[in-house]
Amino acid sequence: MLEKHGHGGDLLTAAELYGVGDGLFLDFSANINPLGPPPGVLELLRDSRQAVTAYPDPGHRRLKSLLAESLGVDSSWITVGNGAAESMALLLLAAAPRKVGIIEPCFSEYRQLAEQFGAEVLSVQGTKEQDYRAGVQSIAGLLEQVDLLFLGQPNNPNGVQYSLDDLRLLARKAEHRGAILAVDEAFIDFIPGERRQSLLPELAGYRQTVLIRSMTKFYAIPGLRLGFTVAHRELAAAMTAKQVTWSVNGLALLAGEACLRSGQAYEARTRELIAGEREVLRQGLLHLGCAVPPGEANFLLAGLPAPWTAQEMQARLGRSGILVRSCAMYAGLGPGHIRVAVRGREDNSRLLRQMAELMQGEFL
Amino acid sequence: MLEKHGHGGDLLTAAELYGVGDGLFLDFSANINPLGPPPGVLELLRDSRQAVTAYPDPGHRRLKSLLAESLGVDSSWITVGNGAAESMALLLLAAAPRKVGIIEPCFSEYRQLAEQFGAEVLSVQGTKEQDYRAGVQSIAGLLEQVDLLFLGQPNNPNGVQYSLDDLRLLARKAEHRGAILAVDEAFIDFIPGERRQSLLPELAGYRQTVLIRSMTKFYAIPGLRLGFTVAHRELAAAMTAKQVTWSVNGLALLAGEACLRSGQAYEARTRELIAGEREVLRQGLLHLGCAVPPGEANFLLAGLPAPWTAQEMQARLGRSGILVRSCAMYAGLGPGHIRVAVRGREDNSRLLRQMAELMQGEFL
Repeated sequence: MLEKHGHGGDLLTAAELYGVGDGLFLDFSANINPLGPPPGVLELLRDSRQAVTAYPDPGHRRLKSLLAESLGVDSSWITVGNGAAESMALLLLAAAPRKVGIIEPCFSEYRQLAEQFGAEVLSVQGTKEQDYRAGVQSIAGLLEQVDLLFLGQPNNPNGVQYSLDDLRLLARKAEHRGAILAVDEAFIDFIPGERRQSLLPELAGYRQTVLIRSMTKFYAIPGLRLGFTVAHRELAAAMTAKQVTWSVNGLALLAGEACLRSGQAYEARTRELIAGEREVLRQGLLHLGCAVPPGEANFLLAGLPAPWTAQEMQARLGRSGILVRSCAMYAGLGPGHIRVAVRGREDNSRLLRQMAELMQGEFL
Repeated sequence: MLEKHGHGGDLLTAAELYGVGDGLFLDFSANINPLGPPPGVLELLRDSRQAVTAYPDPGHRRLKSLLAESLGVDSSWITVGNGAAESMALLLLAAAPRKVGIIEPCFSEYRQLAEQFGAEVLSVQGTKEQDYRAGVQSIAGLLEQVDLLFLGQPNNPNGVQYSLDDLRLLARKAEHRGAILAVDEAFIDFIPGERRQSLLPELAGYRQTVLIRSMTKFYAIPGLRLGFTVAHRELAAAMTAKQVTWSVNGLALLAGEACLRSGQAYEARTRELIAGEREVLRQGLLHLGCAVPPGEANFLLAGLPAPWTAQEMQARLGRSGILVRSCAMYAGLGPGHIRVAVRGREDNSRLLRQMAELMQGEFL
């Protein structure tokens, strides 16, 4: 199984499994911006000896100040993390929840980290009819029973959003209960501003709500690790107090600063590319008989037509140098679900062609 | 105060304090190999787009295998960390000690991390007569009262080692007590093999002893963050289980692999340079009237002659573009202690000249 460590993008395991060099895969298993980092960022890293040979700023001062400006919040509301995964860990360490709620299917780290830090995990199940969302009343009921709830917006692996009204209802419920609502917005940058459902502009009203953001997916720097959270300053300070000194490395800080300065052209170009290519990919997958929820992120969940299993499709594609994510281990998804990242036109076509060939070979 | 975040090497705070650009300091406040990274490592990082744009290997497989070979241990004994600081945090999370022992003066993170993870900190005090070591019986007594003890070998900030016999006594005591002995060998690579006092070759006999190593100081890559521990496989596995996925970034892994492959010439050259320059620096400091314990690492502790305080010396040197570490906040050291890294000949001479000038200006 490719997800030896529970995630996509594991090129070394792929190389071991499929006998292809780890730099040679066409990787649809990790959801990374196909444009690569913004112009100039890799060049900047190349020329930055000091970011390697000197200690990083343990206060993340420059990046925080750029983030504060770009998000329109005070920098005391921001905690920079060694990837969004560390941000989640810091939240768990700061809040020390006894019970954590999740809405399945969802990012596997919610459960893994919660259990790692000693919490009990309760869940509700998204349904096929709601594109694998759960009903807001059912989530609100879960929020009654837990100290912290993770919600993906858009959610991984189905890629759909909850409405702003649903989020408000949950944030108010969290407020009332003294529980924490952790909204994982790791992929929200891929959604155009006018379609984005985020509590960010009204976060001042919700002391118990945390927004978790990733900079590695949109800006294509997953190797460097960079994420952050936005939350009321007391909660932000409690999270920072749990962070190991120098946890965020110097090149990640430098790259993050450069990404934020890179301007809106790259961001607009990314959103346009993803929206267009996602539709092409979706139509192609539907044409192959897959069930595909209308995801808004840079990836799509696809239910393969029977008797295809994710495992079989993943292995067959893997041997031809193409990686997709099996979603067989997600609760509430059958053994026939895969997740594919949206890449550039040529890559997406190659995936669809290869899948078509495999599926026709099987059934014709 | 330069140690706003509790450590040396904080160039951004230095720039704010002294009005000098953060790339322009001559930095004696961080203990980094003055040779810079091994030949070819920076070039390799420059050409490694994949280490930035793909996820790092969450299993650290290549680096672990190289470390295992180089240290002569099984790779199941190794846990790779996002810097030695994360390694310490993972140990605290895995062992969950209620009481942690430290020998003051010592690296400030022992206390900070222990308290951060909810432990009570007990300490014994090193004495001037023993170059700020504590007596082994007094440390053994402390080990009776705690669940985990940190011991620096060589210790920061005084740079001296405990004897192998002392370490064995403490390791056996830890074994007997069921406590953990955490030997911080972050700087031990700077000590030539024949002078190095390490339990590594006999570690199989001590299930309760952990060795903590850093790769950022000797290989001059503190910006990337890379450390590891060696311990019995059960403890190693418990530490790994507490680690956040992808905590160690791709460039750190790649650089670590390259450093280990860089061969012995660079390592020998580093040890020779440090030994020679440390002696020159020590004689110079003694000549200025400082008290200087016979440290064996790549830094020296210096007690300034009265009425000089560390604060005053640090500020004066800072304004001339030279950073030293004030040790005024270390328990058991007076307000007159500074710590200086051993750098290359020219840099060390500049430090000594500048100190001489300041001290003569004051007293002549």
